[in-house]
Amino acid sequence: MPPIFDAAFAEHFAELLAWRRDVRRFRRDPLPDGLIERLLALAALSPSVGHSQPWRFVRVRDEAQRGTVRESFRNCNADALADYAGERAKLYASLKLEGMREAPEQFAVFCDHGTAQGHGLGRKTMPEMLDYSVVAAITQFWLAARVAGVGVGWVSILEPEVVRQALGVPPQWKLIAWLCVGYPEEESETPELVKAGWETGR
Amino acid sequence: MPPIFDAAFAEHFAELLAWRRDVRRFRRDPLPDGLIERLLALAALSPSVGHSQPWRFVRVRDEAQRGTVRESFRNCNADALADYAGERAKLYASLKLEGMREAPEQFAVFCDHGTAQGHGLGRKTMPEMLDYSVVAAITQFWLAARVAGVGVGWVSILEPEVVRQALGVPPQWKLIAWLCVGYPEEESETPELVKAGWETGR
Repeated sequence: MPPIFDAAFAEHFAELLAWRRDVRRFRRDPLPDGLIERLLALAALSPSVGHSQPWRFVRVRDEAQRGTVRESFRNCNADALADYAGERAKLYASLKLEGMREAPEQFAVFCDHGTAQGHGLGRKTMPEMLDYSVVAAITQFWLAARVAGVGVGWVSILEPEVVRQALGVPPQWKLIAWLCVGYPEEESETPELVKAGWETGR
Repeated sequence: MPPIFDAAFAEHFAELLAWRRDVRRFRRDPLPDGLIERLLALAALSPSVGHSQPWRFVRVRDEAQRGTVRESFRNCNADALADYAGERAKLYASLKLEGMREAPEQFAVFCDHGTAQGHGLGRKTMPEMLDYSVVAAITQFWLAARVAGVGVGWVSILEPEVVRQALGVPPQWKLIAWLCVGYPEEESETPELVKAGWETGR
């Protein structure tokens, strides 16, 4: 029988979306055994074009690999800072934009452009649908993590090719995200960039 | 106080992901007043790079505009069919891939590449993050709709430029999705393309 979602569930679901957050400040405690596997199983229920399921979550534990990715962040972030001037540059420099030192779990998420799954359905005129399918899976992973009290931070200030080579994944795997995962230092209903005065939102 | 999501909520949330579905068979009944507005408000809580919130949901009610988009689908779908041969072509031709005649609500969802919001943060090395932010919002819209018993179908077999011109939106708005929205004819835990034998999934 199909599930019924009642008014109480709908209210909690709205709270889930309101309190999700992009987390950059993590506690270092490890996650309980089996939790990551459960979150990945929920992400795998995501919609994908032609049922292609092109997401490839690579759990990165190797300290040397993590170090290479942190270095890429530092380089890209210095480049990005150089684009701003005056007060905006000061503000940018003050932002904490990633939790790659602290987050106990980290993932590189790729889109497998070499997959035959899905037989090309739905992506002839919009080939970018394959990448979008991976973004949907990341969004579901993010929400499922928050249900478990776990925070996710998406780092995009990176050189995709550096990450791909550091992990030795096939060239047809396109980097979509670097995810930091762990318990957040604090919870908030307000996005960090709003709190920091970077952007007010609409 | 931050919300606590208990085991019962987590179980229902997992059911939500399992029963979501990409819907192509809609009932024609209208949605209750105010529901679309509530779903859009929930989608607006989505993560976005630099808090840029680049999603632009255009509710399309004009029958001429809808007709132009249906025609684009028919053209693209005929082209796509020509790529398959034998049994696979027969199977493709038998699939119902959109519900654009029946769905009472339809949206073109764009990414505003002209927005200044976010001040460029997080998208210097990965400019595609702006598009991904819109995909996250669509994913949240989709889940929020399913909580309300409403189905969503994402149509990508379209010419983005035809849709953009039919709606008269600015050239810097990139089409991310065409969404059909309405009550589904039936509910299922199994993706339609799996039921139809197109793809088994993993």
